[in-house]
Amino acid sequence: MDLPETITIIGTGLLGTSLGLAIKRHGYRGRIIGIGHRLETAERARAMGAVDDATTDYAEAIPNSGLAIIAVPLGQFDGVFERIAGFDHDKLSITDVGSAKQLVQASAERWLANPRRFIGAHPMAGRELSGPEAAKADLFDGRVCIICRQPADADPDTMDDVETLFGTLCDVCIYMTPEEHDRNVAACSHLPHLVAALLVHATLGLTSDDPATASTGFRDATRLASSNPPMRLDIIRANRSAITEALSAYRDELDQLIERLDHGNDDALLTWLQGAKAWRDEWITKQFPPESGP
Amino acid sequence: MDLPETITIIGTGLLGTSLGLAIKRHGYRGRIIGIGHRLETAERARAMGAVDDATTDYAEAIPNSGLAIIAVPLGQFDGVFERIAGFDHDKLSITDVGSAKQLVQASAERWLANPRRFIGAHPMAGRELSGPEAAKADLFDGRVCIICRQPADADPDTMDDVETLFGTLCDVCIYMTPEEHDRNVAACSHLPHLVAALLVHATLGLTSDDPATASTGFRDATRLASSNPPMRLDIIRANRSAITEALSAYRDELDQLIERLDHGNDDALLTWLQGAKAWRDEWITKQFPPESGP
Repeated sequence: MDLPETITIIGTGLLGTSLGLAIKRHGYRGRIIGIGHRLETAERARAMGAVDDATTDYAEAIPNSGLAIIAVPLGQFDGVFERIAGFDHDKLSITDVGSAKQLVQASAERWLANPRRFIGAHPMAGRELSGPEAAKADLFDGRVCIICRQPADADPDTMDDVETLFGTLCDVCIYMTPEEHDRNVAACSHLPHLVAALLVHATLGLTSDDPATASTGFRDATRLASSNPPMRLDIIRANRSAITEALSAYRDELDQLIERLDHGNDDALLTWLQGAKAWRDEWITKQFPPESGP
Repeated sequence: MDLPETITIIGTGLLGTSLGLAIKRHGYRGRIIGIGHRLETAERARAMGAVDDATTDYAEAIPNSGLAIIAVPLGQFDGVFERIAGFDHDKLSITDVGSAKQLVQASAERWLANPRRFIGAHPMAGRELSGPEAAKADLFDGRVCIICRQPADADPDTMDDVETLFGTLCDVCIYMTPEEHDRNVAACSHLPHLVAALLVHATLGLTSDDPATASTGFRDATRLASSNPPMRLDIIRANRSAITEALSAYRDELDQLIERLDHGNDDALLTWLQGAKAWRDEWITKQFPPESGP
């Protein structure tokens, strides 16, 4: 992989540690420095072989790095950019893997002397688990990465590094503005997370906390409800208006479904069920071909 | 397994074929006859080793069997019970694996001369796929089975056979009335199925049919939307009032969530997310211990 000789990963939780493991797995021969919010977390990532050095000190990492990847919770971006801005970053490519891109882009523009050296990204991969121990070297395999390029003024060297990194780790890169990204993830990711929590609460209420017949279907439908609550709240705060819009559209769908049920409009129900199945079956075949595993 | 020497499985789709495979896997030495709606389906189950004989003719199967397991779509139960009723069934134990139990119980009572020989059951296992080829010998491993005993008047021999069968295939048997069962599955199974289809339709609408950022979270949250639509409609028809009640409670949850988001009540949002995660994490550890696989 043709990437700078030294890479700093800021944040060594699930995503940061998975990034380190994946970069090394794809044959990168340089050095990876992991910056932890606490040294102990970065040390755990090092123990897993995801980074070569563990530190909490930006001065040990940033001046020597050609690429910095920010993998911290959304609430910490301001602090990270502020620290990076304390160093010359004219030759540092900066990217991130945050789940809401308008907030991150605004933070970069607020703090960095040279915000053209930042190009935000969002590889569409995750787990409901947190921490370095949940990391997987193949987390990004076959996945889509959204690159939030500001079309006119992307710095070409930064774009090279960002495209090399995510083009190698992921299956395909798609380009969107931060606004487009945030609307799309509100529908495809933030909504499903909330729906999973809704389902847990509704089912518990309906069964007096005894969902005796819940099985694998319920397990999979609610998997996202096990995600880290403070991180989810960060994301809701960062993308509130798009999420509110998505929930409102979802409520309209629900009202239509209830109406069809009430009126015994079974033909419309069947067509509606068939439409969901037909679309999803085609999507799953394209996005998760059988050889990519379950 | 101490079961009658000959067992008939009526319906050789996903569940019927899985039943045959599972019964044989647990060491049953007798003969299993598979009755297909079409001979070809029963032949496919036989080719997979799930049944020893394939037929469409009840006369070849029922008079010689000590146990009949009905595994047909809900819309076909009347026809099946009517056919069984054409034979002496005083010594035949009859059970089923249907997803809605009031309808099945009523159908048994309508047709059978001796309805005490029928005890409905519902092993809580399934897949979004259909047909004999989707069958799995371990489909019922570790799962709960609901036995819908009419407490007072269960025939002891029938109950013996039903408890032996599902006690061996599943992890645990729970006893409910058909009414209790139907309310519980409306919340734990029928609601999640509808929520999955809702999520597909809402997300497609919000993204103009281009859910570019949809990934593994969306895949798992929508898995149930790939279930067989006519079968799902059968279930809705059979359990409409409990499902309507469940959707209405779900809408109340959704309204509360939208209100919290609108009012920026982030403390309440966090508590709500934490409540869902805490409950689900505990449930998943109990219901799907790590050694049982993903």
